[in-house]
Amino acid sequence: MKKSIGAKTFLYPMPVFIVGTYDDQKKPNIATVAWGGICCSKPPSVTICLRKATYTYGNLTARKAFTISIPPADRVKEADYVGIASGRDTDKFAVTGLTPVASDLVEAPYVQEFPMVLECKVTHVLEIGLHTLFVGEILDIKVDEDHLTDKGIPDITKIKPFSFAMDSMAYYATGPFLAPAFAIGKELKK
Amino acid sequence: MKKSIGAKTFLYPMPVFIVGTYDDQKKPNIATVAWGGICCSKPPSVTICLRKATYTYGNLTARKAFTISIPPADRVKEADYVGIASGRDTDKFAVTGLTPVASDLVEAPYVQEFPMVLECKVTHVLEIGLHTLFVGEILDIKVDEDHLTDKGIPDITKIKPFSFAMDSMAYYATGPFLAPAFAIGKELKK
Repeated sequence: MKKSIGAKTFLYPMPVFIVGTYDDQKKPNIATVAWGGICCSKPPSVTICLRKATYTYGNLTARKAFTISIPPADRVKEADYVGIASGRDTDKFAVTGLTPVASDLVEAPYVQEFPMVLECKVTHVLEIGLHTLFVGEILDIKVDEDHLTDKGIPDITKIKPFSFAMDSMAYYATGPFLAPAFAIGKELKK
Repeated sequence: MKKSIGAKTFLYPMPVFIVGTYDDQKKPNIATVAWGGICCSKPPSVTICLRKATYTYGNLTARKAFTISIPPADRVKEADYVGIASGRDTDKFAVTGLTPVASDLVEAPYVQEFPMVLECKVTHVLEIGLHTLFVGEILDIKVDEDHLTDKGIPDITKIKPFSFAMDSMAYYATGPFLAPAFAIGKELKK
């Protein structure tokens, strides 16, 4: 029997993106964003959703560029901190000891220590309510060479992404392989 | 050393949403959507992204309503099948043996056997390129009563959501608890 729990923002899995931007002094900033994801194949695009009150919102609106760095499980403390502190009064790179790297494609920094990075330029802005949705075209993905498989694709078992459960305010690791996609379902085809 | 792998739609974690709609004959349909997620807190809203060629696109455009049912790990075969077949020539509920339930809030069906369901009405449509982004306001979430914690919130360890890794075409289970959110990062606060 299903029970109504009301209109909430609970959903699984929710990602943990570390969004990199520059402020007006070109100080590099990073912020944790759990609301976003791939939204289009051509052009390859991703969404991130922000409140206007955030420092990242202002940076992004001004420079129309951002990066997404994927934090590995052993950096959960840094990823959480980056979502608590504000770039307005903190140098989050300095506090976490993480290293900003200037993207050579967009006017935004990414995190050297995180194994996978997307470089994006803003193409659409949609006002929804308290949050604004930004669409970024993905110009490139960069991955630590030793985190690629023999076939040259990202190796999730090395990248070790984790997810955020909003309802229980907790981070969860990526679990074991379950099944091959576009394959196991064929067993049900007549 | 980071290596460029080009402009791709790789990102972690990617969700597995089973999106329910009615067609013009009111036949219930379900489709797997990996591109979407929460996008706004007020009003509580979620995105799903679809190609115009999909059957769900037409249904959704006509009725301005959809549901998201979260498949549990032991239903990965059904979830994968629903992403392979088209509602144009298949009754996916019949093939999978899943049961459609009519939402009492929006004109869309959800999956009885899946433990958590969002009921949504379309509020915004954004054309990005090959994919169209739909924003749905979440009118309610319904969860199997025995999948709620003592505090009345969804219990992720019982719901057992899984994720999709696009690069390796694989599904991964939700792993173990890593750390408390908005908490572990405080250790870095000065």
